[in-house]
Amino acid sequence: MRSTALLAALLVACACARPRPPDVAAGRAALQEADRAFNRATAERRTEGWTEFFADDGAMMLPTGTITGQAAIRERMAKAFADTSFTLTWEPQQADVGAAGDLGYTLGRSEARFRDEQGRPVVRTGRYLTVWKKQPDGSWKVARDIGVQDPPQARPGP
Amino acid sequence: MRSTALLAALLVACACARPRPPDVAAGRAALQEADRAFNRATAERRTEGWTEFFADDGAMMLPTGTITGQAAIRERMAKAFADTSFTLTWEPQQADVGAAGDLGYTLGRSEARFRDEQGRPVVRTGRYLTVWKKQPDGSWKVARDIGVQDPPQARPGP
Repeated sequence: MRSTALLAALLVACACARPRPPDVAAGRAALQEADRAFNRATAERRTEGWTEFFADDGAMMLPTGTITGQAAIRERMAKAFADTSFTLTWEPQQADVGAAGDLGYTLGRSEARFRDEQGRPVVRTGRYLTVWKKQPDGSWKVARDIGVQDPPQARPGP
Repeated sequence: MRSTALLAALLVACACARPRPPDVAAGRAALQEADRAFNRATAERRTEGWTEFFADDGAMMLPTGTITGQAAIRERMAKAFADTSFTLTWEPQQADVGAAGDLGYTLGRSEARFRDEQGRPVVRTGRYLTVWKKQPDGSWKVARDIGVQDPPQARPGP
């Protein structure tokens, strides 16, 4: 009887202490949703919407250099969004998260639109890769962001 | 006495079942070392060295398009390495891994060297972001790889 009680106690303790299997599919869906919220915030609030999705030590890896930290990111993007014709939108296509649910990535297609010096509308499409890190408050924030532009399309002649 | 034995059993069971805290610093160092091994393999065995570091469903996000899977990656890189003047080297500067030690990224500086059509040496530097996923055999493989080139330097006149 005593050994039965011990065994029962062990089984209960094991069941309580065992980490639950992470729900990877749910984690991937949550991360894609975070990426869509990032896109909506940027569409609605431009520089501030973009900046607030970065972690304090997050970085943008641009062709012209890597911009690290919210203050530097805000300053850089304020220059881009100062052009009122400039919009940047994207849509995630894939996401993955680690088994602990604290690190993951999204990737997808992006579209930048603006007007050139002659006022003609320009569309530049590309693909991006964003690494996300879960913050102490449970929110996902951008740790690293990088993108490549598609090759320029052949333009119709004048 | 019986309750003491139960308590002891519970404590032992909890201690055994509790997941160990992951060693994040060691994980980061291991991932940087995997990235350096990737660089060495590519320097030594070119197309095969590059290709074997990708996961079966790994992808290269190039400006000209995303190449997915080892077979397609091998075919694409064989074209690049067919130019015997072409070398691609890199050095990781940062790495991070999730708490479960199964997903992480490296980033760093890259350098491509080749000779142009006139035989003049060309050096193109850039930065890259690589997402790694631990495989069932315990090895780290590349899940996603992307890079941006630095802006071209002003060239000395003829």
